[in-house]
Amino acid sequence: MTFANAGTLGVVPGKRDELVAHLTKRSDTLKQIGCLAYEVGVSDDDPDTVFVMELWESAEAHQSSLTLPEVQAAIAAARPLLSGAFGGFRFNVVGSPLRD
Amino acid sequence: MTFANAGTLGVVPGKRDELVAHLTKRSDTLKQIGCLAYEVGVSDDDPDTVFVMELWESAEAHQSSLTLPEVQAAIAAARPLLSGAFGGFRFNVVGSPLRD
Repeated sequence: MTFANAGTLGVVPGKRDELVAHLTKRSDTLKQIGCLAYEVGVSDDDPDTVFVMELWESAEAHQSSLTLPEVQAAIAAARPLLSGAFGGFRFNVVGSPLRD
Repeated sequence: MTFANAGTLGVVPGKRDELVAHLTKRSDTLKQIGCLAYEVGVSDDDPDTVFVMELWESAEAHQSSLTLPEVQAAIAAARPLLSGAFGGFRFNVVGSPLRD
């Protein structure tokens, strides 16, 4: 079942674009391990937050991605940029009006 | 610029699946007016919430969709199912690690 993660990452003031650069760094591995979509964004209304919207083949694919050396290295590199504020939600996709 | 909306819709207890049925009803109009993705889901952790994750060609495309008769009728039909609790966030997509 497709798994969705929508998250907000609070960033140290002034470090937003640096975090965006980390999160958008091209990774063919992600696709190989079941990542279907990984959109990264920002909002003028909230300059110290980075937003992510992810779709995965399954919750397990998402969970196991976090143990990959490549992903762990990316998390370690991003950590100094994070304020510690996190938000968002996760769900199991059950359908879409764009497809049968 | 691609626009993203991630939302939580609180539902009247017992009405979750009915709201999901409304939100996943096939709509070719949505695609025609610039909806790129519209994923609807649920979570066992929160049985009185429906989750949505949307991507649109632009914030304007999303905004103008709300004025369409088809969308307004869908909103009117869904309203009795909603508890009034809403959450989520919106952002402008700036990139993805899955593409250059």
